[in-house]
Amino acid sequence: MDNKTYSRKHLGIAVVTTTILAAVMFAGAFFFVTHNQEPRREQLGEIAANETDPAVWGNYYPLHYQTYQENFNNTEKPSHFETKPYMKPLYAGLGFANEFNEPRGHVYTLEDIREIDPSRYKTGAACNTCKSSQIPGLIEKYGDKYYTMSFEEINSQLKDPIACLNCHDPKTMELKITQPALIQAFERQGKDITKATRQEMRSLVCAQCHVTYYFKPESKILTFPWDNGIKADEILAYFDEDNFSEWKHPDAGTGLVKVRHAEYETFMGSTHQTAGLACADCHMPYVKIGNTKVSSHNWTSPLKTIDQSCAVCHREGSEWLTARVKDTQEKTKEVQDLAGEAVVQAINELKTAGETPGVNAELLAQAQEMHRKGQWYLDYVMVTNGYGFHNPAESLNNLGKAIDYAHQARQLAKDARVKTSE
Amino acid sequence: MDNKTYSRKHLGIAVVTTTILAAVMFAGAFFFVTHNQEPRREQLGEIAANETDPAVWGNYYPLHYQTYQENFNNTEKPSHFETKPYMKPLYAGLGFANEFNEPRGHVYTLEDIREIDPSRYKTGAACNTCKSSQIPGLIEKYGDKYYTMSFEEINSQLKDPIACLNCHDPKTMELKITQPALIQAFERQGKDITKATRQEMRSLVCAQCHVTYYFKPESKILTFPWDNGIKADEILAYFDEDNFSEWKHPDAGTGLVKVRHAEYETFMGSTHQTAGLACADCHMPYVKIGNTKVSSHNWTSPLKTIDQSCAVCHREGSEWLTARVKDTQEKTKEVQDLAGEAVVQAINELKTAGETPGVNAELLAQAQEMHRKGQWYLDYVMVTNGYGFHNPAESLNNLGKAIDYAHQARQLAKDARVKTSE
Repeated sequence: MDNKTYSRKHLGIAVVTTTILAAVMFAGAFFFVTHNQEPRREQLGEIAANETDPAVWGNYYPLHYQTYQENFNNTEKPSHFETKPYMKPLYAGLGFANEFNEPRGHVYTLEDIREIDPSRYKTGAACNTCKSSQIPGLIEKYGDKYYTMSFEEINSQLKDPIACLNCHDPKTMELKITQPALIQAFERQGKDITKATRQEMRSLVCAQCHVTYYFKPESKILTFPWDNGIKADEILAYFDEDNFSEWKHPDAGTGLVKVRHAEYETFMGSTHQTAGLACADCHMPYVKIGNTKVSSHNWTSPLKTIDQSCAVCHREGSEWLTARVKDTQEKTKEVQDLAGEAVVQAINELKTAGETPGVNAELLAQAQEMHRKGQWYLDYVMVTNGYGFHNPAESLNNLGKAIDYAHQARQLAKDARVKTSE
Repeated sequence: MDNKTYSRKHLGIAVVTTTILAAVMFAGAFFFVTHNQEPRREQLGEIAANETDPAVWGNYYPLHYQTYQENFNNTEKPSHFETKPYMKPLYAGLGFANEFNEPRGHVYTLEDIREIDPSRYKTGAACNTCKSSQIPGLIEKYGDKYYTMSFEEINSQLKDPIACLNCHDPKTMELKITQPALIQAFERQGKDITKATRQEMRSLVCAQCHVTYYFKPESKILTFPWDNGIKADEILAYFDEDNFSEWKHPDAGTGLVKVRHAEYETFMGSTHQTAGLACADCHMPYVKIGNTKVSSHNWTSPLKTIDQSCAVCHREGSEWLTARVKDTQEKTKEVQDLAGEAVVQAINELKTAGETPGVNAELLAQAQEMHRKGQWYLDYVMVTNGYGFHNPAESLNNLGKAIDYAHQARQLAKDARVKTSE
């Protein structure tokens, strides 16, 4: 056994070293903990009721803000026309025919609307509505006049993209509907949106923008056409009742209505929704940052977060889950392509018929009616994110109708031409 | 404390009463146990290798036999034409146009084939193949000659419907493939069916009959057309390669192939199948009889046994589960009806074109080609039990194609007529 003795100097060095080590470890732990949890409200005071800047909210909720910042990594916005060449002829006469891109991160809303072909926002100010956290305040400021202002009048005032204030009450952090169009759509259906459950709210805050809509003629008020219900046939019936068309197709002569990303409408009644899920369950999964669990505010495809989004319920592994989603999406896309081609053929036939002297006007009108329906059902699926996955059976059902109507349109247009020329 | 004394007589009565009570309880328990479990093999000896009678197997497996007997309660066989009136014109020229009923209990196979319109079994002996447990023995006895014998020659020998011997080895009770057509189809694909796992076998024994098939020209050998794969497009390509038609439609003039209940082909690749399930998991759920758990041999819709079939994995309750299945089935049926109507219109147009003097033969042939495809894809879904539920996205995808091809056929048939008469 070693019987060495130690001097006081040795002992002093050991004590000092240990103390320093302990201090460094403590500081490290303190840094780790404080940088991986949200500060207490009382330390910072309240967020202002009209605070539109997400960076300010980020001081209070740095971890949530960290996930929000991840939206900056979602940078790609390929043209829809690359994978759906039939879109261009379908939208002839509308800004969508000039430029139409796949969506990217919510933080780019302002940048993107300023870069896009100006024909896309000729309706005016209302085209800014889903682009900024400042909009609810501006609608409150200007009232219904907001909708008839010019695009530039509003856009020039915007600095913040979609952000915290669009969905949260800054005082309580509770989910909050700030989109008048959604509140009004509920009212017209005799429903009070303030009675929505928390789980319903986890979809309804998304439904502020992820729905189809139109601008009321003259007043240009942003309106959700849900008075008859929220399904494709019910919404089309609503427009038919009012004899409403958004534009007249220059080649087909048909009065058409453009569908917008009907994710909420499609998701409602689906297997996942009826099983109790909300948009946020898949699109805003809980992620762990340090020792804190936060609902991710990086809004994107759940295919990128399968382990957090899907595997919570489905235990088959990410490879299998991805394959299932892709299977549904590919089968939907294949039928969508058939529908797209069929509607384009109908448009071409309508063009020929329209140019034929003495064309049978009654048959031509019937053909246009079928074209209107066919393009509606196709558009309803085609511009809704998820390639049918939000509600596979419903999406494929709509596409089946689209193909049928489109071919009927083509047939009737031909008849209109032939029955006269014979 | 009570200090009463008892005589020997009292004691005697007590002993006798207790003994009788114990005996009765023992006998009751013995009766309960023996009547709710299967006897031991050594008590009864082996089942004969060629035992086709399910009642004999029932002596060995009374509980399984009890569930098999429940097939007798599945008595309804409504005409397909009641809910799908377009079926009749589609099958013109084929026995299916004369009578075509929904399936009922497997125990009625012989009764039903003897009652149906004789035009349904004019192919001959082979039409008995999926109707009796005696068939494997008869095929072994006659060899390939079996297929060219008359319907009556074989049918007159049959007394047992589909039963135990169709799927089980009577020695080991293991699952066994007894259908030569299935074994051969695997061989032609370079696969050895004896290498199938037990879980695969729990689907493959069903695939002995629940598949689409045809009879080889001349030899009339029952054949599964799977050489290119088991999906609708792959099977149609197989028939196209051989230029095979089962019959010529008398009105349309089109060479067509009839699809038969392609449940196995449809189920393969579905969500449930890729998750590891077999036919038996839903259609033959475990049920408890007394204190024994047996796999039910009452083959019917799992909607009748949701708690045993679905709720094992899905915890949302039978009402929700039923609603989900119905939602898929209704959306499929709606599109199926559109496809049915479209194919009928194509047939009518082809008839008119065919009767037009100097019709454009090339366009007419193209129209018939489209009719062949359209009717194939429709038939593939329409005659497959489950109204699309075995594989919703695939079924709706097939129906989308059916609508598209049918309308193309109609259009081309019209062109064939008009381009000539102009």
